[in-house]
Amino acid sequence: MKKHVFNAGPAILPEVAKEKTIDAIRDFAGTGISLLEVSHRSKDFQAVMDESTALFKELLGVPEGYAILWLGGGASTQFFSVPYNLLRTKAGYLDTDTWSAQAIKEAKLFGEVVVVASSKEGGYKFIPKDYVVPEGLDYFHITSNNTIAGTEIFAEPKTSAPLIADMSSNILSRPIDVSKYGLIYGGAQKNLAPAGVTFVIVREDLLGKVERAIPSMVDYRTHIAKGSLFNTPPVMCIFSALQALKWLKEMGGVKEMEKRNIAKANLIYNTIDNSRLFMGNVAKEDRSRMNATFSLKKEDKDLEKEFLDFAAAKGMVGVKGHRSVGGFRASIYNAMPIESVQALVDCMKEFEAAH
Amino acid sequence: MKKHVFNAGPAILPEVAKEKTIDAIRDFAGTGISLLEVSHRSKDFQAVMDESTALFKELLGVPEGYAILWLGGGASTQFFSVPYNLLRTKAGYLDTDTWSAQAIKEAKLFGEVVVVASSKEGGYKFIPKDYVVPEGLDYFHITSNNTIAGTEIFAEPKTSAPLIADMSSNILSRPIDVSKYGLIYGGAQKNLAPAGVTFVIVREDLLGKVERAIPSMVDYRTHIAKGSLFNTPPVMCIFSALQALKWLKEMGGVKEMEKRNIAKANLIYNTIDNSRLFMGNVAKEDRSRMNATFSLKKEDKDLEKEFLDFAAAKGMVGVKGHRSVGGFRASIYNAMPIESVQALVDCMKEFEAAH
Repeated sequence: MKKHVFNAGPAILPEVAKEKTIDAIRDFAGTGISLLEVSHRSKDFQAVMDESTALFKELLGVPEGYAILWLGGGASTQFFSVPYNLLRTKAGYLDTDTWSAQAIKEAKLFGEVVVVASSKEGGYKFIPKDYVVPEGLDYFHITSNNTIAGTEIFAEPKTSAPLIADMSSNILSRPIDVSKYGLIYGGAQKNLAPAGVTFVIVREDLLGKVERAIPSMVDYRTHIAKGSLFNTPPVMCIFSALQALKWLKEMGGVKEMEKRNIAKANLIYNTIDNSRLFMGNVAKEDRSRMNATFSLKKEDKDLEKEFLDFAAAKGMVGVKGHRSVGGFRASIYNAMPIESVQALVDCMKEFEAAH
Repeated sequence: MKKHVFNAGPAILPEVAKEKTIDAIRDFAGTGISLLEVSHRSKDFQAVMDESTALFKELLGVPEGYAILWLGGGASTQFFSVPYNLLRTKAGYLDTDTWSAQAIKEAKLFGEVVVVASSKEGGYKFIPKDYVVPEGLDYFHITSNNTIAGTEIFAEPKTSAPLIADMSSNILSRPIDVSKYGLIYGGAQKNLAPAGVTFVIVREDLLGKVERAIPSMVDYRTHIAKGSLFNTPPVMCIFSALQALKWLKEMGGVKEMEKRNIAKANLIYNTIDNSRLFMGNVAKEDRSRMNATFSLKKEDKDLEKEFLDFAAAKGMVGVKGHRSVGGFRASIYNAMPIESVQALVDCMKEFEAAH
């Protein structure tokens, strides 16, 4: 049976990225050596690093003055690396989900943190909008897409401070104006690559301004100077990321992705809005195009397990909502074809007809 | 042509580990989902984590009271994580290579560092032995195998402080008495797994004694509490590590590995010692069983490139010495069959006969 993988991350990858990864594990770039055994200092792997960086820059339209890093340790490592490198006295954070809350917690170890706005009281079911970012911040941090709640920030907040975004779960899903940001980071295992690699896009002139001593591995300048080869990088994940980037370019780039992602999101949210049984979890204008969260209407709550079993029997994987929210979640990242979303929607309609 | 991969890391893996990784990228554990897309919170991946940890403990004979962690970020992340978690006032380090020097550099950010002994003046060509570790240290740190110089520590130093070892490049190559150590860590990409995962073996009673605030990702207690699933781990690498551990057990465990590694090391070092052209780089009693470093004798130095080309033409990969040392290096980790060492030795003899 065909499986439709709606996992929130690690998540679905383009078929071609998986196939090329397998080919390279057998024979990397015609070297006769496995991708899993190749030296990260070989010229063939250097070519992978260079092409990944160039293509990432090209697809996102990264302007001059920014460096691209490929690191290990996940976005969670960036939660403390960002303040370690950039927080002198005071930073602002927007609190929109568990992940921003985690980023806030780590930043507090390094200086004063102003939570400029939060939707925590409302169960993170919307993106705060009517707030003013105070002056005098070292930076202002947002989580651009919230995988657990299922909300997304579509308009960059106004701030005079450098804007920093955790884009783990919506990077490359639509065009962004990178010049509006000081730093963008994310774990790649949602919209780009297998679990194990983290990307950082950083405006270089922001660095070197804190007084504290920074461990070499945490200091972005180390990795900029060494082209992400200060230590052994996650070789296979970077190779797979490159294959996904090539696929994305061939598909038409981030503009085409946005079109497809809007179509997929409309398909599932329209189904939800026209349903007797299901309802969306969050404010309509803040609905994520990457993670559609929904629930059964109150009177039908007892059908939750039944729907999950029904969906699983039809090949739907990862439709269960995050344990802190419950209900359902369909993560429909770039690599997800609309056919899989249609399969889920059909499944929802069939279930509804039977109840 | 058959390639013999003598890379220092990322390095050779057991054939079966690569094959099983490929199989799982196609279909992980019969789930119909790719290993690259499976959720790290699924029961099938939890089984991989549990089995990796249990087998690692079993093979190394890890006693009660120690936790095993599977993390991202490489050994370089441990260079600062160790002092972050354990350095209160003063730590001791043995300086035996570039990597210990790097560990020393990072530790200095967190407290006083006593370099108890160093072979730096001697070009790191031996392991210092006649030193006394002072009392009153929070811990004493060694690098058990030195990939660049090609030396190895075969006897644990005497110290009343907890002994900490970077075992990136000789973990599982022979039996060790884990109870003599407070903490053992290493990047797994040399003797265990593809690049991207790091192991930590830590005696739990050593933790929680420093005053400083530790970022969640750096705090070993975070990962112990969450079973290395605080954040998304490098899923594929951990799966591959498990396959290598299973292979190692099937081969007969670390005692059998030691026997094989001694035989491989003897084969190459005997060839070097009986050669007119080649000579070993380091003190005989400190020669690494994992990284055999050698050079041309002075009068033949100009043949260096010629030998590298000759070896490459016969399928030898990664025989060039580290750029800071020059000459040659053959990394002959656990997964390297003696047939490959024989192929290199034949190659050396053939070259010698022609000159």
